[in-house]
Amino acid sequence: MFVVIFRAKIHTLDEEYTRTAARMRELALGQFDCLAFHSVTEGQEEIALSYWPDEASIRAWKAHPEHVCAQQLGKARWYESYTVQVALVAREYQHSNSAPDQPQC
Amino acid sequence: MFVVIFRAKIHTLDEEYTRTAARMRELALGQFDCLAFHSVTEGQEEIALSYWPDEASIRAWKAHPEHVCAQQLGKARWYESYTVQVALVAREYQHSNSAPDQPQC
Repeated sequence: MFVVIFRAKIHTLDEEYTRTAARMRELALGQFDCLAFHSVTEGQEEIALSYWPDEASIRAWKAHPEHVCAQQLGKARWYESYTVQVALVAREYQHSNSAPDQPQC
Repeated sequence: MFVVIFRAKIHTLDEEYTRTAARMRELALGQFDCLAFHSVTEGQEEIALSYWPDEASIRAWKAHPEHVCAQQLGKARWYESYTVQVALVAREYQHSNSAPDQPQC
């Protein structure tokens, strides 16, 4: 499984950002092979994580016309700067106070 | 380069959390080989990213006595649940409105 890590310094978020972010999430999860999506914003900092089965899915998603348009708006209006990293998940473990720990593999 | 992705659902954060989080960051960056650390919290959601040169550094950091104590407090008091993922960064690119785009390698 791959993860795309988007770390951004926000410039200005507006109503179009909110609509676009919701649409991008819907598209990625519904029409592409995105496995999960998590986004957290605090002040001017944003981290968004999306999970994918392979790099081909990530490239297809990056090239989708609506997503290309959103990327252009992001550069022009919403973000001062950002970094995108593509990483291969090697291992993971979880803890939940409502469930026993899973093995650390 | 490796990234450790910590995604948590927060239960309750207190003053000891704030002190411990600052100390853990200082230790990781100052006495271990952590390359960078970014943490964002929104409501009950937290994402923290730490970057490392290799898996040996990550294991040494995980096993440090002060960090083990912090992990136990995290489970017992601060977090309802969390997921930790270790991933290998395959590629990255950046954009900044104050600098030309770097090549997408």
